[in-house]
Parts: sequence; structure tokens; C-alpha cells
Amino acid sequence: MTGLLERIQSPLDVRALSREELPLLAREIRDMILEVVSKTGGHLASSLGVVELTLALHRVFNTPVDKIVWDVGHQSYAHKILTGRREQFNTLRQWGGISGFPKRDESEYDCFDVGHSGTSIAAALGMAVARDCRGGKEKIVAVIGDGALSGGLALEGLNQAGNQGRDLIVVLNDNEMSISPNVGAISSFLSRKLTSRFVVRLKKEGENFLRTIPVIGKDLLNLARRTENSLKGFLTPGMFFEALGFNYVGLLDGHNLDELLDTFSNVARMNGPMLVHVATRKGCGYPPAEENPSLFHGVGPFDLKTGQVKSGKAGATAAGPPTYTSVFGRTLIQQAQRDDRVVAITAAMADGTGLTEFQKVFPKRFFDVGIAEQQAVTFAAGMASQGMRPVVAIYSTFLQRAYDNLMQDVCLQRLPVTFALDRGGLVGADGPTHHGVFDLSYLRSMPDMVVMAPRDEAQLQRALVTALQHDGPFAFRYPRGQALGVPLSDDPEVLEIGRGELLVDGKDAVIFAAGSTVAAALEAAAQLKGKIDLAVVDVRFVKPLDEELVLKMARACSRVVTLEENSVLGGVGGAILELLARDGALVPTLCLGVPDRFIPQGTQAQLRALCGLDAAGVVASIQRWLH
Amino acid sequence: MTGLLERIQSPLDVRALSREELPLLAREIRDMILEVVSKTGGHLASSLGVVELTLALHRVFNTPVDKIVWDVGHQSYAHKILTGRREQFNTLRQWGGISGFPKRDESEYDCFDVGHSGTSIAAALGMAVARDCRGGKEKIVAVIGDGALSGGLALEGLNQAGNQGRDLIVVLNDNEMSISPNVGAISSFLSRKLTSRFVVRLKKEGENFLRTIPVIGKDLLNLARRTENSLKGFLTPGMFFEALGFNYVGLLDGHNLDELLDTFSNVARMNGPMLVHVATRKGCGYPPAEENPSLFHGVGPFDLKTGQVKSGKAGATAAGPPTYTSVFGRTLIQQAQRDDRVVAITAAMADGTGLTEFQKVFPKRFFDVGIAEQQAVTFAAGMASQGMRPVVAIYSTFLQRAYDNLMQDVCLQRLPVTFALDRGGLVGADGPTHHGVFDLSYLRSMPDMVVMAPRDEAQLQRALVTALQHDGPFAFRYPRGQALGVPLSDDPEVLEIGRGELLVDGKDAVIFAAGSTVAAALEAAAQLKGKIDLAVVDVRFVKPLDEELVLKMARACSRVVTLEENSVLGGVGGAILELLARDGALVPTLCLGVPDRFIPQGTQAQLRALCGLDAAGVVASIQRWLH
Repeated sequence: MTGLLERIQSPLDVRALSREELPLLAREIRDMILEVVSKTGGHLASSLGVVELTLALHRVFNTPVDKIVWDVGHQSYAHKILTGRREQFNTLRQWGGISGFPKRDESEYDCFDVGHSGTSIAAALGMAVARDCRGGKEKIVAVIGDGALSGGLALEGLNQAGNQGRDLIVVLNDNEMSISPNVGAISSFLSRKLTSRFVVRLKKEGENFLRTIPVIGKDLLNLARRTENSLKGFLTPGMFFEALGFNYVGLLDGHNLDELLDTFSNVARMNGPMLVHVATRKGCGYPPAEENPSLFHGVGPFDLKTGQVKSGKAGATAAGPPTYTSVFGRTLIQQAQRDDRVVAITAAMADGTGLTEFQKVFPKRFFDVGIAEQQAVTFAAGMASQGMRPVVAIYSTFLQRAYDNLMQDVCLQRLPVTFALDRGGLVGADGPTHHGVFDLSYLRSMPDMVVMAPRDEAQLQRALVTALQHDGPFAFRYPRGQALGVPLSDDPEVLEIGRGELLVDGKDAVIFAAGSTVAAALEAAAQLKGKIDLAVVDVRFVKPLDEELVLKMARACSRVVTLEENSVLGGVGGAILELLARDGALVPTLCLGVPDRFIPQGTQAQLRALCGLDAAGVVASIQRWLH
Repeated sequence: MTGLLERIQSPLDVRALSREELPLLAREIRDMILEVVSKTGGHLASSLGVVELTLALHRVFNTPVDKIVWDVGHQSYAHKILTGRREQFNTLRQWGGISGFPKRDESEYDCFDVGHSGTSIAAALGMAVARDCRGGKEKIVAVIGDGALSGGLALEGLNQAGNQGRDLIVVLNDNEMSISPNVGAISSFLSRKLTSRFVVRLKKEGENFLRTIPVIGKDLLNLARRTENSLKGFLTPGMFFEALGFNYVGLLDGHNLDELLDTFSNVARMNGPMLVHVATRKGCGYPPAEENPSLFHGVGPFDLKTGQVKSGKAGATAAGPPTYTSVFGRTLIQQAQRDDRVVAITAAMADGTGLTEFQKVFPKRFFDVGIAEQQAVTFAAGMASQGMRPVVAIYSTFLQRAYDNLMQDVCLQRLPVTFALDRGGLVGADGPTHHGVFDLSYLRSMPDMVVMAPRDEAQLQRALVTALQHDGPFAFRYPRGQALGVPLSDDPEVLEIGRGELLVDGKDAVIFAAGSTVAAALEAAAQLKGKIDLAVVDVRFVKPLDEELVLKMARACSRVVTLEENSVLGGVGGAILELLARDGALVPTLCLGVPDRFIPQGTQAQLRALCGLDAAGVVASIQRWLH
């Protein structure tokens, strides 16, 4: 039908086009992204927002010699299409297909693997140092969203890069959103949504400043007074970045190719740290996504014509049981209604963690700290130190950013902060950067942390109420996606901490399972019935373990299987082995879990099968082990 | 002799003094700090720098109802002396004595436990939210050093606090240093060490800005041109913080009590986020510390009269074997001379990690990123992606800040970054915030990470050369303090990765020890000789384990002891239990390590004894276990 895009095998072909052809190419790229993502799901809005920007970068810069470092990377679809992956693009985010994020293994144009936010400036600066040590001349371009600037790592990067004076181009892709609308002072500042209070203060400050200028200060002050409005201009985004040592260029219209091409051509000839500020629209070119960029941030398959999402957010479904996320959100509202010490904290993921409704019901008890997980945890610790009961709702993979804060600011002070870890286990299409398969291991080694994994949504409710009445740190993790469909409670019962549950008795071996794997254990036991008589225990608490139950069952059954959707190193299996050793119980033990390597993308079912964590895999492993 | 300080039981007594008495009190506090720290060692320079500031805060604010949140906390000595701990102050940092950092358990005046940098704004904001939810009126004051502003967490805190508009006072304690002199753009900016390049750019920018002002812009521009120098004033520190939403007050002389008292009295009556910028001198009042604040940052006992440090930096000694730190530093220089891909990275700890000499020899291959551990790791990953061989030298406890960066930016891409983890294990007087006793657990669960612990300084040399030739992530950890005194090499041999070493053969049981505990294992074996015939294996590699050797020895000896200066959860013991289980080897195993709780302060020897990790403890545990 079209033809331009079909001729693009690499950025070389983009450089060969006439400038006039580029808008058409942009349209074709958008069409391809829309067509594929409407079927596969994916990060639509961000990728649609940077089509022109991507074209301009690959046309002006000599990639792959020049490097483009994408921050987070979920905006890299146009980049992928232009860099030799057009024909595989329909395999996006699928098992065996191309990743939804840049991956060095996939293309020489992907120079840094990414998935979490805020790494691009640090990585690009490292590349610039390597270039300078080598005496190279290539340009290094980091493309970072304004949302990432609420994160400490990005700010650390700006602070260091601005000071070093090396050739480095930071493109600030400013769409005024992270996943949720942005928060924080820098964001307000960038978007110039200056409050009147701010302007008043600024005016005062500006006058004070002018007064300090010798000789002509007064003249300036008088002039300034006549032009109050322009005082706002004293603090432009440019000033902010200039203060950090960058040469600021902006604000560019991120959908105006001529402007982008001309500016980048100039910038490419300049030296030192450059910051190019580009305004883009999330979802640009597709009205449903422009209107609802949060929904179309990470979206499941949708009807291209109507923009009707077929199954809600990725991972949810319209029919059937609710998602764990939504059960968590509803139960938290329930509990917050009963206890006004309860507050909720998210790091830019209100929607993803099920807090949208909470925010509406309790706007003053809801806190979005931006993409700043460290801040989320230490801020919560501060609240807890003063008697509040903060609940930090966060994806397991992102909590990794706050390991030290968990340890130092929460556990060390034994503060009652609840961590609701969504997307614990294998998450599916987002792949290795997003699997939450280390949490049980790293949380378990923290003194005083209670670590729990509910096996279904009713247990999730009970986990939450148990956490809220516990006078110390408490983390529970639950999977992405639909729950099991068990009945929910309006008044969930508190669990006894450190108490597991014998679900099925048996005598040949006992499976100690946690969280999402309990269902697989039960199914495996059912399938093996008659051949192998398996007991199934839901350990519930990975820490503290139900030592009495574990030892009793291990001794009674003389064979132990541990099962977890977590690294096979140091998690539930490790905990049970340590307990058995401590007790001198010599019981053959088979530890099943996520193997010690990074797990690729695929559906959750595919990945569970890959890791042998579904019922069939458990059955096969146990049979192999016993024979 | 003096008398004023003797009357101070709490800040109430400070408030009862006349203003005229305060300078004398300040002098007495300094004398007490000097007297005690010259004997105990401790964080001298920072604490001397904030004596007047501390007095002013406790006099103006109604502590402990009003809260002072100290960042890092090593500057809290005057605070401790004024808040009921004068008489215990001579127990500072000692076993059973008062902590060198604020601790909630110790005093109601210590409102947040701290030890790592950059947490105060986040915690204070949390407290402010709790106050507002409760309808309270107390003031919350975070005292943060300018060094901490190179860290992402502090910047995240400013970004969020500035935007929320709550009552919160941030005192910026600006001594132009972190532990080392500061780095980064914000720092240059604060200290107004504006480069000429910066001024030129600023001028241009200022002119461009003025040009954009309608009507009077040209007039302003002409005026501005006549006063080039004052253009520097366009960007004051005040502007920076104002941009972030703070009301800026400064720059105050941090040693002028009248100025501090008057200003804080005013500030206490104001609302919204306030930033009070105070200039202090590290080591103020003690010339040797003023002249060499890095040396007197964390210092061992010293001669009060001469300022002569008795044993070098805390942990080192003038005579006897070198420290691990210095062996690392020297060996790195050696290797860098042979391989120009080798570069060194520190997060504001050049001296502490032994890189001072490296910096002199290879100034262009040395990078201090400031107190920004995340940046250190991701920056290194960027370099490694382009063929460099970066070595990140960092204390084990501080690497916790970069857990996610290790996982996502290094391991996931299998990049050849070397992590030299100093202060692995029990560190001594700094206590629970600084022990490096989780690294083996959390590093081991990261796919593709090699984790090694050298048992002496010769093995440390070999660890480093092995890491540098390995094509992937490699972490090795070594203890604080003096090494064993074994011969060093000018050309250390590469180790075979995953190969342990049988040091002593035996038949009753085998000890698998790692790192610093190997010496204790050898001594225990010697002590038990004749009673119990112990084999001793240095596992060397915690990951990958020497599976062949471990299984062979476990089977041969039929009893296994694991020994590590790391949490007993998920570390070496866990690794060996997992291996034995996988192999079906049913061998009674005793796991010795740091118990699952936070370990207090004391000497390293005291703490090793406490944890049963010295030879006597190992002997006792093994005897108890076997009988």
C-alpha cells in the first residue's frame, strides 16, 4: 500500500530519503506500531510520541557509530522498526520475538539494555568517557523522559554529566507525564505550571537579587517592576539545566520534523554537555491514546478502529475473576476507612498498583512520589516513625531500587511499613527487566522483615490486614494478572504471623509451596494421586517460617519439595534447607523455582512452563526426582 | 573548670542560658568532643563543624516535640551531648556505649535512625505528612550536608518536598565537602566556583533571556551588558532551591550564633518549605582538623595536642601488615599500568577505598561520582559496554544503594564491571548501619555475578586480576582493617573461577569457609586437633561454588560446617545446602554466620566473638554440635 517503510532496512535508508518524504514515513511507522500493538499489546503511547524524534535522531546522527541510549526503553518501537527489525516487529513482546525494550543482543543499534527508569544519562556518560579514553569522536545521545527526572538516578546523572564537560547530548522528551501525570517540583517547573504563590515568591526573590547588583541594580529593579510577568522568565527550564552545567536548547516541537532536524544538525556540531528539550505528546497521531495516555501507556490488545481495549490493562480481563491488583486496591480502601493511620504511597504507578480509586476516595492520604522508589520507602519510614501505617504499593522489580532504604530506613528501625509487592514472580511480556523473581530472596535476608506470599486473593486480603496490624515491616507479594476467583471478604481475618497451612495431607513427600505456586502444587498432587501421595503445605510466610509445621511434615513424609516463583537461590527453598539443617533433619529435598538466569519474555503460562513451575512441570520434576 | 556544660541536662537548659553564654558553651562542647574522640576515634570534623548550628537549633526549636532529622548522622555529637548523653559520651562508638549515629532507641531526641546519606528530607517529609494528618503544629527540621546533594535520594526528597508546600525546614549544612571534596554540578553551583566557561555561557543565556522580554528587554540587555560580572548573580543557590519550590534563606555564617539564632527564630515563624543555607567549616575550632578535614572525617585515636593520628585512618595501623584497602589500591595501580582499559570509580570515598594514590597516578582514569552509588554502578556499566574495565571500589554497606543497578545494568547485560567491596563483614565501631553482612546473600542471587571473598591480601590481589580478565560481572569483598601479613606479589596469578582450595585435610568434618573466616577456621581446626579431625576448605568463590570439591569433601567427611562473616540467611551456608540438596547428599550441616538480626557496634573482635565467628566461637559451636 505505502511503500516508503518497506524500503527502510536501516537508518542509512532514512538518511537517503528526501526531507519531504519523512512525514509520510512517520505516518507509516505510526500505522505499523498501531497495527502490531493493537494485537500484541505493548507500550503504545510513549512510542507514538517519539516517532518524529526517532526519525530525526537516526537521520542526523550516524548510528550505530553514534549511540542513542533510550531511557526505560518502552518508547523504542520506532527505533526498532528503523533499525532492521521491521519484519520481526509483529513478534513484539512475544515468546521468541523481539523485546519491547532495547537489548544489546538484539541489534548493534541497541547500545544499552534497559527497562527501569533513569539509567540513560549515567550509562551515556560512561560511554562518553570510554570514547574520550579511546580518542573517539562519536556522539552519545541519551533520550530521557521528563517523568524520569523525578528519580534520583537521573538527577545524579545530570549532576555528574553537567560537571564533566564532556560531549554528551541529553534529549529531554517532555510529555508532561511519567506513566501517571508527573509530580514533583522539577516537573511543575518544566511545564511552567507555576503556582501563583511561586510567582509571588519569585518576584520577591528577583527583586532582592536585582537590589544586590551594584550601581545599576536599582534601575533594573525599576524596569523589572514594570514587567512583572516577565519575572517568570527568570526561571526557565533552560536556567535549571544551565545551572547544572548543560548548554540548553529548547523548547522544540517534537512533532515538527524540520525543527528537530535543523536543531539536531546544529547540536551535533556543538561540544560539551547539551540538553535538548523536546515537547512531545504521548499517543500522538492516535486520538484514543492522546486522550487517555495512561490507559494506552502499557496496554493490552485493543480495537484499532474504536480504541476499545479488549481486555483492559495488560494482564486484566473484562470477565472472570478480578486481578490481584484490584483486590488489593479495594481491600486497602476498606481498611483505610477503618483506620485513619493508613495511607498509600505509589511511585508513579497509581493505576498499575490499583490505587486509582483509593486516590479518589482519600486524596489526602494518597501520595505519588514520582518515579522515585527510594523516596517512596524512606518517606514511608518517616511517616511510620510518627505513628502512621503507610502502605507502599509497588512492583516487585521496582522495589529493587530501594533495597538499602528497606534495610536501613525500615528494618533497622523496625518501622511498621507495609510493602504490597505487585507483579511478584514472572510477569510475562515485559521480560527480564520486569520479572519480580528476586524479592523473596533479598527480603528474607533483612532482619525483622516479615515476608509473605498469598496463594489467592482471599489470602491477599488477609495479608494486608495482617500487615496493617503488625508492629514492624511487612512485605507480601502477589502475581500479575487475574486471581483465582475465590470468595472475597468484607472483613478479612488477621493471619497468625509465621503460621503455614496444611492443605492436603500425604505421606510420600510434602510440597512446601508459596504464593502463586500453591495452586500448581495442589494440581500436581491431584495428578499424581494414586501414584505418589503428596502432601501440600502453603508456607504462607517465607519469613518467619512455620518451623513446627515444616519440620513435622518433613519428618512425616521423609521427602521435601519446595516450590516458588522466585529465584531458586536463597528463597523459600533456601529457607527450608536452612531450617532442616538447623534441626538436624536429613530429608532429601528438591528445590523448584526460577533457575539462576534471566528469564526471557513470553506469556506467564509459557514462562511458568519454561521454568517447570506449572503443574505439569512440577509433576515431571517430582517423578524424575523420585525415580 | 568550666561549668556551663555540666549544667546542661537537656535542651531546656540551653534555652535557659543567656545568649552571651552560648559561645562559651560551644567551646566546652568542642572540648568534650575533642577529648573523647581523640581517645575513641570517630567522626570528628563534621561534628566540630556544626556545634553552633546544633546549639541554635535546640535553642530555637522546641525539641523533642519539634524534630531534628540529621542526615547521615555522623555530625550528631553535639546533639548527643546536649540531649542527655553528656555523661555517656565517653562511651561513644564502643561496645555497649552510645552510637556514633542518631538512634531512636537511645533518645527521644533522635527521631530517625541514620547512617547512610541522603535520607533526611524524605524522612522529614514523611514526618511532616504525619503531623499534618494529625493536625499537629510541630516543626520538622532536616539537616543535610551539601555532599549529600550529589545523591539521588536527597534530590528526590527536595523535588517532592518542594512541590508539596508543607511546613518543612531543610538546613543545608554547606561545608563544601562530602567526605572527600565535593564533585558534581550542584556542588560547583553552591560554592559559586563557576568556571569561566560557565560564566560565558551564562552571559549568553542571560542575554538571550533578556532579549525575549517584550518592550523593555532591550533596555535590560543594555544594562546587563554594562555589568557583566553581576550576571553571575542570575544563578544564585537561592534560585536553584526556589526553582524547586523552597523559600531560600542564606547564606548564613554557621559559626555566628547571633546570625543563626535570629534567622532560625524568623524561619520558625514562616510556613511552607524553607531552605536555610548555612556555611560551616569542617573541623571548626581544631586547627589540625580544619587543615585536613578528610583525614579527620572518620579518624582513629589521635594526640590532642599535636593532631598526630595514632593509627592512621580508623582501622589502619602505622606498623604491622598493610590494610586490605591499601593492598587493593596498590594492586589496582599495578594492573592499570598494564591495561589501559582499567579505570577506577568511587562514590565520594577515594581515601576510604584506597584510591587516593590511583587518583594521583591516573587522574584521567579516576572518577569520583559523589555520594551517588547508583550512578557509580550504571556509569561503570556504560563504560564497560564500550570495552573499558571499570572497577567500582565501594564499601559493602553502600553498595546496597545500587542493588537494582547491579542487577539491571550490569548482570542483565553480563558487563565486565569489577566490584571491589571494602568493609565486607563486621566493621566495628560504626555499627549496624555500616556492617557489610548482606552482600554475599544479595549478590549470590544475581544471575551471572561472580562472587568471591579472598581469605588474605594475596588472594585479594588474585581476586582483582581474575576479575579484570573475566568477561562479566565480578564482585569480591574483603574486610575492614589490617590484612594477615602474607607475602604480596608484583604479578598476581589469575585464579580459576569457581575453584576452591583444600587447606587442611581431615575426616571428621569439613569447614567450608569464605574470606575473613578462613583464618578462624584454620585456627579452630588447629585447636581441635587430636579431638576432632577437621578439614578446612576455602571456598573462595561463593558463586560459582566449586561443586566438585564441596561434594567430594562433604561426602568424605560426612559432616559439614559452613562459616561466613555474612548473614546466616542465603549466603555461603545457603549455597552449600542448596548444592548438597541438588546432589542428594544427606550430610548434617552446621551453618555459622552473622545471626539474623542487626549487629551492634563494638570492636571487630568483640563483634566476631558475639557472633561466634572467631576461632573460639567456631570451636565452641562445633563441639556443641557434635556432642
